[in-house]
Amino acid sequence: MTKNFNANDFRAILRRMPEPSDAPAGHSEPSLEEQIAAYQREFRDLDPQVEQVVSALQRLNRRMNVAYGRQTATLGISNAEWEVLKALVVSGAPYRMGPGELAKRLGLTPAAMTHRIDRMASEGLVTRERDETNRVRVIVELTHEGREKWLEAMRMASVFEEDLLQDLSGEQRRILGDALTRLLRRVEEAQPDAEGRLSDLD
Amino acid sequence: MTKNFNANDFRAILRRMPEPSDAPAGHSEPSLEEQIAAYQREFRDLDPQVEQVVSALQRLNRRMNVAYGRQTATLGISNAEWEVLKALVVSGAPYRMGPGELAKRLGLTPAAMTHRIDRMASEGLVTRERDETNRVRVIVELTHEGREKWLEAMRMASVFEEDLLQDLSGEQRRILGDALTRLLRRVEEAQPDAEGRLSDLD
Repeated sequence: MTKNFNANDFRAILRRMPEPSDAPAGHSEPSLEEQIAAYQREFRDLDPQVEQVVSALQRLNRRMNVAYGRQTATLGISNAEWEVLKALVVSGAPYRMGPGELAKRLGLTPAAMTHRIDRMASEGLVTRERDETNRVRVIVELTHEGREKWLEAMRMASVFEEDLLQDLSGEQRRILGDALTRLLRRVEEAQPDAEGRLSDLD
Repeated sequence: MTKNFNANDFRAILRRMPEPSDAPAGHSEPSLEEQIAAYQREFRDLDPQVEQVVSALQRLNRRMNVAYGRQTATLGISNAEWEVLKALVVSGAPYRMGPGELAKRLGLTPAAMTHRIDRMASEGLVTRERDETNRVRVIVELTHEGREKWLEAMRMASVFEEDLLQDLSGEQRRILGDALTRLLRRVEEAQPDAEGRLSDLD
């Protein structure tokens, strides 16, 4: 499934990488079970089943973000740069977007977007050219190297995700995906304006 | 189940609150289905079932964080303050912890912790007193008001979470909680040092 990584290589990378945070070592939190028990003791109306869904989801997502951050760090790109690569790849060949369009997609101000594109252009991940048909307009285009970085990150992510889901059968994965998608629909309906930021890191 | 809120009140609060981000309005991203289709097109080895689990989970978590952030904002507390309230409540009566213990729990530096405690003390959420048995030692204690804020936030969160999970039966919730907990165990085993930060906001 992957060309350049296998699961053991990847696990070795994950273990080797430092925690990408300025937090001191030894950060500790109660286990999921301890937290649910404490919440039940302090808040009598708690539904422990609901709390398990919500807290497991939050903890899992937090740890997944650390893992993805370590992956992109091994490729020398930040989470912020990853979001730009992703937007350009998802837009499809020829992988071109205007800076304003990109800023809107990522929920960034034009100034923050310009700063990010400058950095990525200096690293060879994107080019920034004047539109030939309209010299006022700037076009950001993914380079071959930028696209390769995205593919490399996707291969690493696939290994990690396959490892993560190893205990679930195909049917269990389908049920899990369906359940999460139903919850997502509910929160999208309840709060259509609350997409949240794609990335808190820049 | 809740004393001071019902689901409609809460939904009204959520709709009314501005997006707690400096992102410009109109931030847009492809739908989950569009993103999975684009990933499949660009990365042939993608397992769409795995991608659905992972991407739905990330989007859901992002939107849930926006919702919780709006809730605590209506109570006049930041996410950072919420984490401190939570740690003190979970520690149990008499709701006292040393600043060093708190810093370690939240993955903060001592300086950041001191700053946060100062602010919370000025707002009446905690007190900071010298330990009577050891005058060098400082004890942070949750006030009655701080505990009430935590309870209020928990009531709001319960309404939101019940709304979120309304489409799932008890059995489906159990299956979902179990599946998420299994994934969490896997990532905890693979990366025991990667808890991630409890809060990116301060």
